[in-house]
Amino acid sequence: MNERDIIQYITNLAPNRGEGVVQGIGDDCAVIGKDGNSVWLLTMDTLVEKVHFDRKWHPPELLGRKSISVNVSDVAAMGGKPLFVLLSVGLPQSFDKEWFSAFSEGIAQGCRDYGCILIGGDTVCSPGGYSFTVTVIGEIEKEHVLYRSNASPGDEIWVSGWLGHAAAGLEIFSRGIDIGGQQFQPLLNAHLNPEARTQLGLELGRCGVVSSMMDLSDGLATDLAHLCKRSKVKGEIFADRLPLSAPLSRAADILDLSPAMLAVNGGEDYELLFTAPPDAAVTVEQIGQACVLDLYRVGRIRQGSGVVLLTADEQNNVREQKIAYGGFDHFGSDIT
Amino acid sequence: MNERDIIQYITNLAPNRGEGVVQGIGDDCAVIGKDGNSVWLLTMDTLVEKVHFDRKWHPPELLGRKSISVNVSDVAAMGGKPLFVLLSVGLPQSFDKEWFSAFSEGIAQGCRDYGCILIGGDTVCSPGGYSFTVTVIGEIEKEHVLYRSNASPGDEIWVSGWLGHAAAGLEIFSRGIDIGGQQFQPLLNAHLNPEARTQLGLELGRCGVVSSMMDLSDGLATDLAHLCKRSKVKGEIFADRLPLSAPLSRAADILDLSPAMLAVNGGEDYELLFTAPPDAAVTVEQIGQACVLDLYRVGRIRQGSGVVLLTADEQNNVREQKIAYGGFDHFGSDIT
Repeated sequence: MNERDIIQYITNLAPNRGEGVVQGIGDDCAVIGKDGNSVWLLTMDTLVEKVHFDRKWHPPELLGRKSISVNVSDVAAMGGKPLFVLLSVGLPQSFDKEWFSAFSEGIAQGCRDYGCILIGGDTVCSPGGYSFTVTVIGEIEKEHVLYRSNASPGDEIWVSGWLGHAAAGLEIFSRGIDIGGQQFQPLLNAHLNPEARTQLGLELGRCGVVSSMMDLSDGLATDLAHLCKRSKVKGEIFADRLPLSAPLSRAADILDLSPAMLAVNGGEDYELLFTAPPDAAVTVEQIGQACVLDLYRVGRIRQGSGVVLLTADEQNNVREQKIAYGGFDHFGSDIT
Repeated sequence: MNERDIIQYITNLAPNRGEGVVQGIGDDCAVIGKDGNSVWLLTMDTLVEKVHFDRKWHPPELLGRKSISVNVSDVAAMGGKPLFVLLSVGLPQSFDKEWFSAFSEGIAQGCRDYGCILIGGDTVCSPGGYSFTVTVIGEIEKEHVLYRSNASPGDEIWVSGWLGHAAAGLEIFSRGIDIGGQQFQPLLNAHLNPEARTQLGLELGRCGVVSSMMDLSDGLATDLAHLCKRSKVKGEIFADRLPLSAPLSRAADILDLSPAMLAVNGGEDYELLFTAPPDAAVTVEQIGQACVLDLYRVGRIRQGSGVVLLTADEQNNVREQKIAYGGFDHFGSDIT
């Protein structure tokens, strides 16, 4: 029984549809009816010490903020505006007070940055180590919700920024190597303190030309596979269109890893992945400019299933490589 | 820094009031505006292995159901109807599949019993042991919400059932003593599989005569102290009015504990604690009968602060004993 079986098992047993539920398990957020115009978006994510974070290298302020960001990212991924936060804090009996104070500052900073109000939660003793569960509740007009399930053959596949940064940053930290200077700061930052794309998510939701959207938490390969499965389509990624930054390429060299593989398999970038028909490109580009974010067209949607990476050799022969569900996996997965 | 400091610390740092928030941190649930007529109630509780449950004696089905019940109880305590569930599951890398399947059955059973729909959540690897965080979302008409903060001098204090059962049940299990027969089953059941008082909560919310309400999760002493602090009043408990069951008295005898102290300090009964003016007694009694629950008047509200236990000796001299915040505490406390 792996994490997908776990999800499937509980989902099949428990009542999972009914009055008020617009979207249950299976997307970035659950969607429930609010009033005639709007719906609530609800998401829940748990971060566990030694699985999702390491206190050796993760400054507590940034970890606190990240706990908020990763949940807010799920709300942004549906086009919504985050509003409220519930927080459950698990601390060992003799916990580090200074560490916890700084962590709390990060939680508060995250709430302020994303315009959220902390409305409740729980504190418990956690003998096994630090762990944090956050629920974020967001709102959006009914007609602007973007699901994973609406991508159509012919659509282009977009991402909202550099890929693989967070995975490269984590790799640098976990190997404990000193690669010097400020040049790799964007990679380290991407792991320590990702930025949820709230403004972009809102604008893409409102513009009416985007067909499907989700956030990149488990890596492009895995996440696009989810999107394609839900939309009953095939995803093609063009290897030469992957947005690979100069710091990523240099770090990959030092780490002896492929930058393309970091970009395709690396998790936790918390960029937005979305699809739109080709004639929407101008609108999408304008939204990117308004949000001061570079948006990249990395592939296209076809009839079929699964996800493939297309690579052209010197003779322009295209090689098709199956990459679905090859992404980062630390035994853990959203059941929203 | 104890659990109350933790709550205070985060609450002071983070934005905790604002548009849409009817009630933030400080009651059984957070309350946020839904539409013109109704509000949402939101609560979150975490159960951690070896802190809140022991797999040695807790059958997984009952633990799953209890994870739902303790959250539903918070919604009932505001007068609301539970609707939706988010569940975060933390499992060790090599977890017991059979145990988890049975636990999932319990989650599903809890959802069915209380009329809730599982809409999402998370699954994570938890090297430190099993842990579960549940969020329940409920609904209620705006004018029917019952807070902790509205008890008035002169009100009577009510509870909805036997007190101390869950604490006695836990004590029997944790001492590993075999006290034989079926006579203590109500105590063991109260610990393993508490019943959230949803119907009673709804009726008390609707009847218009109840002034304040909360659920008994940390014990009468602690919970009444919370209610009195929020209402800026004093609570008096009459020792001779405490509902002490025959099984509790017999078990207390075997355990060499005072049944009254189990009833006052024992946590996790998940009965409702509420206040109403004396002339509401007939209405309250009728609601109890309709719900097939015995309701007990255990004290009264006065001007002042704190909670006291009043005991009369043979000469009818009344002794006043301060008992506030003496309840069960496993380092863990709601921040709703």
